[in-house]
Amino acid sequence: MALNVHHVGIAVADLDGSIERYTELFGATVEHRETVEEQGVEAASLRVGSSRIELLHALGPETPVGKFLAKRGPGLHHVAYEVADLAAELERLLASGVQLIDETPRRGMFGLQVAFVHPDATGGVLAEFVSDDSH
Amino acid sequence: MALNVHHVGIAVADLDGSIERYTELFGATVEHRETVEEQGVEAASLRVGSSRIELLHALGPETPVGKFLAKRGPGLHHVAYEVADLAAELERLLASGVQLIDETPRRGMFGLQVAFVHPDATGGVLAEFVSDDSH
Repeated sequence: MALNVHHVGIAVADLDGSIERYTELFGATVEHRETVEEQGVEAASLRVGSSRIELLHALGPETPVGKFLAKRGPGLHHVAYEVADLAAELERLLASGVQLIDETPRRGMFGLQVAFVHPDATGGVLAEFVSDDSH
Repeated sequence: MALNVHHVGIAVADLDGSIERYTELFGATVEHRETVEEQGVEAASLRVGSSRIELLHALGPETPVGKFLAKRGPGLHHVAYEVADLAAELERLLASGVQLIDETPRRGMFGLQVAFVHPDATGGVLAEFVSDDSH
């Protein structure tokens, strides 16, 4: 049971240019920006009102986002749903036979606890569950 | 200047199955469901807390969503941003040289006024501006 959409993740070719574009088009403001070497990504979390857009820039072609960009080009990457209790939610989904990429919570960007659901479980969309203790 | 993300649009192969899946996975509830013959689409607007997911089912292979499905398969289709004054926003964007698909508001689904921005303007993501007078 998700509380809301936490963010929409977008793979971009040019992080600075995309931040500028989202600011100009949608009045977005940068909330966080972080490079996570072990995930091969530089990410910026933008706020648009109460909503959140996460821009993802690959640190190299062999990273997950790099492979996505090579295959699909820049574009929509995933939808993240906020839940109150991530571990309990994953247990519930596993018990229902839902195909998970992460069966237990792991540390994501920006201090979030995260777990990814396999796109086959949603009909083609990579979904992320997020527990956000920052608010 | 957008107020927030109004919805995330997702192209699906099976509308009933997807509604069931989003209900099971995310606790989504159906807000509206509508067939719009002239747009070649059957759509369901789902609420997940305060957020909104729009599931799009093509009425045929030659429709816009049908062509998207043939090219990319089921998956994330667009992000819609809510604005207070759609006509004024489009004027502002045109004056900035932003590439628009719709230069004036048109009637969308669920009684919304909408206009699409070309994916080239955002770096690869189809974006929609929405004016929602229902709240």
